[in-house]
Amino acid sequence: MENRNKIIDCTIRDGGLVNNWDFSVSFVQDLYNGLSEAGVEYMEIGYKNSPKLLNATEPNPWRFLDDNFLKEIIPEKKFTKLSALVDIGRVDPNDILPREQSVLDMIRIACYIREVDKGLELVKMFHDLGYETSLNIMALSSVPEHQLIEAFEMVKESPVDVVYIVDSFGSLDPMDIEHQVKKFKAMLPNKQLGIHTHNNMQLAFANTLTAMRNGVSFLDSSVYGMGRAAGNCHTELLVTHIQKPSYEVKPVLRVIEEHMLEMRQKWEWGYIIPYMISGTLNEHPRVAMAYRNSDDRDKFVDFYDKVTSPESSISSLSK
Amino acid sequence: MENRNKIIDCTIRDGGLVNNWDFSVSFVQDLYNGLSEAGVEYMEIGYKNSPKLLNATEPNPWRFLDDNFLKEIIPEKKFTKLSALVDIGRVDPNDILPREQSVLDMIRIACYIREVDKGLELVKMFHDLGYETSLNIMALSSVPEHQLIEAFEMVKESPVDVVYIVDSFGSLDPMDIEHQVKKFKAMLPNKQLGIHTHNNMQLAFANTLTAMRNGVSFLDSSVYGMGRAAGNCHTELLVTHIQKPSYEVKPVLRVIEEHMLEMRQKWEWGYIIPYMISGTLNEHPRVAMAYRNSDDRDKFVDFYDKVTSPESSISSLSK
Repeated sequence: MENRNKIIDCTIRDGGLVNNWDFSVSFVQDLYNGLSEAGVEYMEIGYKNSPKLLNATEPNPWRFLDDNFLKEIIPEKKFTKLSALVDIGRVDPNDILPREQSVLDMIRIACYIREVDKGLELVKMFHDLGYETSLNIMALSSVPEHQLIEAFEMVKESPVDVVYIVDSFGSLDPMDIEHQVKKFKAMLPNKQLGIHTHNNMQLAFANTLTAMRNGVSFLDSSVYGMGRAAGNCHTELLVTHIQKPSYEVKPVLRVIEEHMLEMRQKWEWGYIIPYMISGTLNEHPRVAMAYRNSDDRDKFVDFYDKVTSPESSISSLSK
Repeated sequence: MENRNKIIDCTIRDGGLVNNWDFSVSFVQDLYNGLSEAGVEYMEIGYKNSPKLLNATEPNPWRFLDDNFLKEIIPEKKFTKLSALVDIGRVDPNDILPREQSVLDMIRIACYIREVDKGLELVKMFHDLGYETSLNIMALSSVPEHQLIEAFEMVKESPVDVVYIVDSFGSLDPMDIEHQVKKFKAMLPNKQLGIHTHNNMQLAFANTLTAMRNGVSFLDSSVYGMGRAAGNCHTELLVTHIQKPSYEVKPVLRVIEEHMLEMRQKWEWGYIIPYMISGTLNEHPRVAMAYRNSDDRDKFVDFYDKVTSPESSISSLSK
């Protein structure tokens, strides 16, 4: 049977949440070439949000992708397709070219469960412009069942190609993933599914494998795991472990050797105790991220006491 | 239903393979107290091999455990039981006290499949002296099925309490583990099972959970994963994730905060690319460990080429 899995490398997009997208053009080009040689099917090269709608004062090419800029830096597409993520309320339709005029192949729409209607409007717009689309419902671990059922009634009528299971907080284990995948498959039999994991409990790779073995075909990852807080499933692990003749791990190893070790010295992501704790508690990592930027960064017991104390809620800590 | 899982923390024993057992007495005492407060059932405090049989020229108290020394440093046992590992051909029966005169509760016997007969002789000796015993068959991923079947014929007649599935090379994934556990259970219905994992592919925790969910009750781990090469399943993850009222993660966090961060600066273990590669290739990590001690330590592509080249076998590299 043909292996229909597809890897979407999110190093630039999710990794940008670590370093405010402080990536050089030559790094992004090296990554694109490496992923193409490795047989990785997609590279998410950033966000396609509107700088105007976000009141941006600084240029940030990977956060506000521009088609002319993309054509300049990737004048010739290789094996790997390009995708971009957008957020609800941050897209300016005037920024969007039809697919045949763009370097981008896929647009992924991130939304919370309460915004699925708005997400599907964007899906329709991008779909009509010719793009492949996905809907990435964030913070799934906190979504009540009945809201999911309601949302899926709309989703299954939409033209969206892929629906993602997103473990935003890194709080799910392989049994949870299996349960979610079965639910998604039963409720959305006409859609392809995707998985986006975080590594708070060192389960990102295992969760991705579990999803794959239960029929999920779009697998998100990042080279050396670079992504917000605990980071993502590692691209090099997927490429080496999944049986697909086109995958080659060596080009990914080269990117790690030439770039990622140095970047990991400069910026922090991965299995770090406060992120493990926030994952276990099914909480957004923002409180832990703030803590890691404070002088108390390594006071794990103090952090644990703060976030589990009944008097001080996790949200008050983040102020 | 009562949770019958037991955690065996191997920080000193397997971690000693990282730093030649360069642990201070006060660290080992802090660890013992922390594990007791955390509700961890066993602590493997080292090897009980004979310095004479190993021609040791230097004292190494955690490698050559001595009952008098143990009584001195742990004058009062708390919650956590103590275990020691022994290797075939390295045990001097004259070194071994009956259990009631020893601080040790359990002796675990490590052996390769070809030595199971010798392993079971040691099991019998330690069992007759009153110890709990386990048989840890190493390098399971390279054992042919028929050898396992033959060995198990002997094992099931022996008085051994626990038989371990040991993923020495960190090469197994959760599906492999499930398959092995089912085989072990079918062939050894009268024995408890144990699991010892390595984290080469970031699967140590997931593999341990998979084993547990399939009926394995003895779960090996190390605080902050400290163990040879890629290290082990993390004790803090098991204690926080497994539902058992007696488990408390905070004492383990304290040990990490006070000791492990500094130790990780000084010594290396964990997810490191050459170990990932050796795990993927189902090879002993010794070649990767030698590489990490050379000037080429971060030349991942070069390492990959060397260990996958048909001309230079992995064993010739280790010379």
